[in-house]
Amino acid sequence: MDIINTLEDLRAARKNMTGSVGLVPTMGFLHAGHISLVKRAVSECENVIVSVFVNPTQFSPTEDFASYPRDLERDAALVQEAGANLVWAPTDQVMYPSEYQTYVSVEEITKVLEGAMRPTHFRGVTTVVAKLFNAVRPDKAYFGQKDAQQVAVLSRMVRDLNFDLEMVICPIVREKDGLALSSRNTYLDKSERQSALVLSRSLRKARTAFLSGERETEKIRKSMEEVFAAEPAARVQYISIADPSSLKEIERIESQALVSMAVYVGKTRLIDNTILGMADPNLDGFDH
Amino acid sequence: MDIINTLEDLRAARKNMTGSVGLVPTMGFLHAGHISLVKRAVSECENVIVSVFVNPTQFSPTEDFASYPRDLERDAALVQEAGANLVWAPTDQVMYPSEYQTYVSVEEITKVLEGAMRPTHFRGVTTVVAKLFNAVRPDKAYFGQKDAQQVAVLSRMVRDLNFDLEMVICPIVREKDGLALSSRNTYLDKSERQSALVLSRSLRKARTAFLSGERETEKIRKSMEEVFAAEPAARVQYISIADPSSLKEIERIESQALVSMAVYVGKTRLIDNTILGMADPNLDGFDH
Repeated sequence: MDIINTLEDLRAARKNMTGSVGLVPTMGFLHAGHISLVKRAVSECENVIVSVFVNPTQFSPTEDFASYPRDLERDAALVQEAGANLVWAPTDQVMYPSEYQTYVSVEEITKVLEGAMRPTHFRGVTTVVAKLFNAVRPDKAYFGQKDAQQVAVLSRMVRDLNFDLEMVICPIVREKDGLALSSRNTYLDKSERQSALVLSRSLRKARTAFLSGERETEKIRKSMEEVFAAEPAARVQYISIADPSSLKEIERIESQALVSMAVYVGKTRLIDNTILGMADPNLDGFDH
Repeated sequence: MDIINTLEDLRAARKNMTGSVGLVPTMGFLHAGHISLVKRAVSECENVIVSVFVNPTQFSPTEDFASYPRDLERDAALVQEAGANLVWAPTDQVMYPSEYQTYVSVEEITKVLEGAMRPTHFRGVTTVVAKLFNAVRPDKAYFGQKDAQQVAVLSRMVRDLNFDLEMVICPIVREKDGLALSSRNTYLDKSERQSALVLSRSLRKARTAFLSGERETEKIRKSMEEVFAAEPAARVQYISIADPSSLKEIERIESQALVSMAVYVGKTRLIDNTILGMADPNLDGFDH
């Protein structure tokens, strides 16, 4: 597996590729969720580039940038096994050289949910993904529905800035017991790992309520809060029931609603979501 | 001459182009300065696209967006004569559809000079040019040295965001008497047109001082202020002698200095510049 670090080498490799190019942007420490993106890309594109970059600009000074798990050698092996062509793992200096000062911002839909809790996060995400898009020039880019707001924000950026590529959104991948895969799950001890099931449990409760005809979001939210009340080790940061595109909170579900949440289990912050009434019922990774 | 309005038509035309593609972004009402960019592009690229778009996001509410001169038919004829392939003239709705909310910002070097006087200007410029770059995917993009800070800001954006294209910076084009060409010159009445020569006159004075060995910027600035003192119809907004890359004011010129200014003549705001000690002595459009 070729691991490329510099922009020049990436561009040279890109110019030698014929046919379609898929990009899977990651922060590394790959799990089965990432690999599902790589495999989807391999099935749809003649060439697949996986970027591995723990992007400092999307972490706040109080967050876990320094301790975020990294294992490039293992990542490269997994990517090779999944059939991708190369790994692009630029250094911080390649991505943000001295005098770096350009940022891409999506202004409205980044003010709520994750953006409200992490005010500089999405500016870092949109900036680094714009850079990855320009460097790789993919025909398709693959992202996981796990980061639902990220998907909405990046889709908005692609439309607004006229990026000529297709966003491919892939289903959340879950453990058998329902826990959504996340590189941060590695922070959980055995007891926390058990408590963390409360996220997916509450989402299933919301689905059940919706499928039995409930459309008032206040009632759906109450039923989810009951689930959390039974798991005191989990501390809810927010539960949102919002329009999937504008991300504005809604009172009554007319067609679709994004149910999303951030929850602390011990010191680990976890997120999860489902879209009620979604066109693709498998996107949330639950068995239906 | 093909005039294309939609992104879809532009993309279709772009996909049919073989060989290199040059982009000349303009706000229309083309003068000989613009045409010099088009001709340079035609001489270097197999295909040349000229965009004509009066970009609302780079005007403040108090500026002249509504009255900015427009004449697309004449522009298209001039562009055809200069040998370009097509004009892309998107509507406001194509460039900024409802729910539009993504902006590109260069943060540091936009705080001074034009950016200090026009706080939202460069955010509009970098955003629209990023959109043009993504829509056209040019190999080379052509800009005039007349907008010296714009050149510095866009060059910074290209490097920071990894745009895979070459910025080609072309000399200022001047009237025989020294006035730098500008679409806004059309606002000047006969007497103001004469007063406007004070800009180029002061720049030549700065050049003369530099060429005779003066390196103290305070002294160069004083000699320019003397020129303005003799032309009361002109009101100086700023005169800057700065590092051409960081745009920070300097006290002593070690190698190069960008001398730039904004001056009101009547209600018309004019800018002009020269680079002292520049590698390409013709970039400022003066006879040397």
